[in-house]
Amino acid sequence: MGTVDEFALIRLLTGGKQSTAFQREGGVETGIGDDAAVVNVNPGTQLILTCDTMTEDIHFKPVTMRSRDIGFKAMASAVSDIAAMGGKPRFALVALSLPRQTPLERVRSLYEGLYDCANRYGVRVVGGDTTSSIGGMTVSVTVIGETAAGQALLRSSAKVGDVVFATGYLGRSAAGLDWLLQRNLPLEPEGADAESLAYAKLVEAHCRPLPQIEAGLALRQSGLCRALNDVSDGLSSEAWEIAEASGVGIDLIEERIPIADELYTYAAASGKDPLDYVLYGGEDYELLGTAPAEHALELQIALGKAGVSLHLIGYVNGEHSGVRLIRSGGEVMPLDKKGYNHFNDVGGKDGV
Amino acid sequence: MGTVDEFALIRLLTGGKQSTAFQREGGVETGIGDDAAVVNVNPGTQLILTCDTMTEDIHFKPVTMRSRDIGFKAMASAVSDIAAMGGKPRFALVALSLPRQTPLERVRSLYEGLYDCANRYGVRVVGGDTTSSIGGMTVSVTVIGETAAGQALLRSSAKVGDVVFATGYLGRSAAGLDWLLQRNLPLEPEGADAESLAYAKLVEAHCRPLPQIEAGLALRQSGLCRALNDVSDGLSSEAWEIAEASGVGIDLIEERIPIADELYTYAAASGKDPLDYVLYGGEDYELLGTAPAEHALELQIALGKAGVSLHLIGYVNGEHSGVRLIRSGGEVMPLDKKGYNHFNDVGGKDGV
Repeated sequence: MGTVDEFALIRLLTGGKQSTAFQREGGVETGIGDDAAVVNVNPGTQLILTCDTMTEDIHFKPVTMRSRDIGFKAMASAVSDIAAMGGKPRFALVALSLPRQTPLERVRSLYEGLYDCANRYGVRVVGGDTTSSIGGMTVSVTVIGETAAGQALLRSSAKVGDVVFATGYLGRSAAGLDWLLQRNLPLEPEGADAESLAYAKLVEAHCRPLPQIEAGLALRQSGLCRALNDVSDGLSSEAWEIAEASGVGIDLIEERIPIADELYTYAAASGKDPLDYVLYGGEDYELLGTAPAEHALELQIALGKAGVSLHLIGYVNGEHSGVRLIRSGGEVMPLDKKGYNHFNDVGGKDGV
Repeated sequence: MGTVDEFALIRLLTGGKQSTAFQREGGVETGIGDDAAVVNVNPGTQLILTCDTMTEDIHFKPVTMRSRDIGFKAMASAVSDIAAMGGKPRFALVALSLPRQTPLERVRSLYEGLYDCANRYGVRVVGGDTTSSIGGMTVSVTVIGETAAGQALLRSSAKVGDVVFATGYLGRSAAGLDWLLQRNLPLEPEGADAESLAYAKLVEAHCRPLPQIEAGLALRQSGLCRALNDVSDGLSSEAWEIAEASGVGIDLIEERIPIADELYTYAAASGKDPLDYVLYGGEDYELLGTAPAEHALELQIALGKAGVSLHLIGYVNGEHSGVRLIRSGGEVMPLDKKGYNHFNDVGGKDGV
């Protein structure tokens, strides 16, 4: 990737993926090809800036994700941070470090995935940097989003008396990864029996998670949402983040936490507790938030109109700090705030 | 770096580095600590977005740069892309991948350097992502800058009849690196003889390059600058970029290209041609641009008032495409467009 090959490579990877009209309509004045990109943003808005990195052997291995899934998920994880602020994603930059012998086909597939996700969410890819590396592949995606001024949904806004809600089923991504690793099954499942179908759903949840941009926007526009986080590190860890940032306690009610059928199927087949995946699995990229209890029904109806199901799974409690699980039998169990580790390994998220 | 340790690490690395007042004054509404940062941008401006990556053993080795230099230079190289557009840098995000056994002290030093550079240029650090890696260290910095709408200085604006200028001395960074590698000398030079002083200057040029933000702003505000690039890949490569993007030819005049005394000293001591470093060395982060010939003197005076020396080193020629060197004897020599490789290695720059 000297200068000559590099520009050719950039053209090969990005050419035709987003039309000039599509970029211009999205506010791109000067896109890929100069020292930096130049973009327009409307007055009266605030920008939301975020960055997420995926590293080979830490966040993925060739046996757990295809190249196009790696690209899709790298973009998705950064887009999800914009969803978690109630924002609209606008622009992205992609920093890619590649082992020198990486086949071009692998890089092309990775870019297919990056653009699949970007185009799905209306994100204009406007630049980045490509370098070689002596280790594995590293993909770092920066996304710039926007929100109406003063309306971003922070994790520090939960109040005592709020209900706690989640936008979907949790624990599916981590179960998909475990299933992939334990059974050594192919990434593209075959078969139409119940177990194969469950496997396909969980693998899809792991490889192609869908950030909840529509839900985040609807939550912000409702004016009824207080705190909001995306679930990148597991329910327990995310609830801890809201509790600590807001200076409150959170009680989660076991029997109110929805469990997907496919997670039940996997847990039953493997002798695992599905709740472990919900609490300590990561990368579902659903949203976890709080809202005033008196507006909970109103919020559920408003979100329902936007096609989003809100599950009410707990409440904010002023009598303790931290996160507890109220078991079905009434037992109160304090929860660890440990984050999600893919391969019993290290992997940070958010912040610098 | 599970969730607990990670937030503690973030506080340790970023706490106290930039005050809340400094961040707020710079437009930061919500900084490090939530899913993403929220920032304000003035109406009537355009944003400039860029991203630069430094990878261990590709862009640096422990013998060539101290951790705080790595941090400084990673920030500097992204800031320089903003300078190359005539913009003002505003916000940064830092994506860091670290080998698991990295000593905390090394990471702290790297952050000292990142913030040294950020604070020097008024850049507010608002987030990022920290992960572990199985290979070496990777630092990727995204910088968001701004410019008055429609005024960014592109590399595609050179016109036949323009003069070509550079803001400073080139080739110093690459000579500093070669000196470090060949002599196996300490990173912090001692001695007050001419050679030690030259060594100190070249090592400083390699480890702590200074992006030309003031020069870029003055060039833009002058209204007299056409094309602009920063010199990250060597004079030849950058001139090629302008020539190709603008559809013109560029002739560089050997005897007008300034050579720093310290580069002469090193070249004489090592039997090298200083011009090789100027043409094919990289990472000086000076600016290379073009301006209408009839305004060249006016531009030099305007830049002089901003403390910037403009060296006129060539002109834009419509009779060929590509880049040529007019030797002192009159010989016309076509120049390669090869980019800069640190360790005879691969290292792309710009674009996706």
